[in-house]
Amino acid sequence: VASSFVDMSAQECRDRLGAGGVGRVAFCAPDGPQIYPVTFSVVDEDVVFRVAPYTRLGMHVPGQDVAFEVDEVDHARRDGWSVVVKGRATPVDDPDEILRLRRQGPQPWAPGQRHLYLRIRPRSVTGRSVTGD
Amino acid sequence: VASSFVDMSAQECRDRLGAGGVGRVAFCAPDGPQIYPVTFSVVDEDVVFRVAPYTRLGMHVPGQDVAFEVDEVDHARRDGWSVVVKGRATPVDDPDEILRLRRQGPQPWAPGQRHLYLRIRPRSVTGRSVTGD
Repeated sequence: VASSFVDMSAQECRDRLGAGGVGRVAFCAPDGPQIYPVTFSVVDEDVVFRVAPYTRLGMHVPGQDVAFEVDEVDHARRDGWSVVVKGRATPVDDPDEILRLRRQGPQPWAPGQRHLYLRIRPRSVTGRSVTGD
Repeated sequence: VASSFVDMSAQECRDRLGAGGVGRVAFCAPDGPQIYPVTFSVVDEDVVFRVAPYTRLGMHVPGQDVAFEVDEVDHARRDGWSVVVKGRATPVDDPDEILRLRRQGPQPWAPGQRHLYLRIRPRSVTGRSVTGD
């Protein structure tokens, strides 16, 4: 069961994040920790995702600190990587920026009115890869 | 971009979890939300994973509420599911139980002394699948 963790470089973390896709947002709500998958993209080094206003994400995440994780794992090969971004999830209010994000930003899969754009300006970005021997 | 969310049945959530593999533990530390991937397995309906004592997981998680998430996502096909377990992560102290978990429990990939077994007794288990149309 020998495997080893390796810290990823800042560039490698940026590259992995930059591909976008699906990540997971973790945050602390009054009733404890929460975790939700979201589609995201990276715009100007910020992680951007959309939420619907009257949901747990929409109510508890804007203005709050979050941990955002993206990974790719092959359990059979014991091989993978994980990148975690920490920072405040700030609602985007500026109409011009919203228009720009509508073009460059993430496309949610699921229906519903995900009007609210949030961007996480990274306070820290860390990544680890693990490879089975 | 039409897709739809469907709540998964309790049985389907159990089946997905029961396969084990890699999930993500989210918890609230004094400096904010944290998220870590871990290997896990399900023993007697509890989610079991291992941590090293002198790590952030080892220091902040035992005895605390966590949200544990496992998913499988095909971003290109916009297709996937996600199951979230919430509950307290309780350290396993009983030597007989530790012996049993050593056989039935999760095998971490990475080196290091993950002596500490934690089990999450689910307070809630919820799952959603999403399928592109």
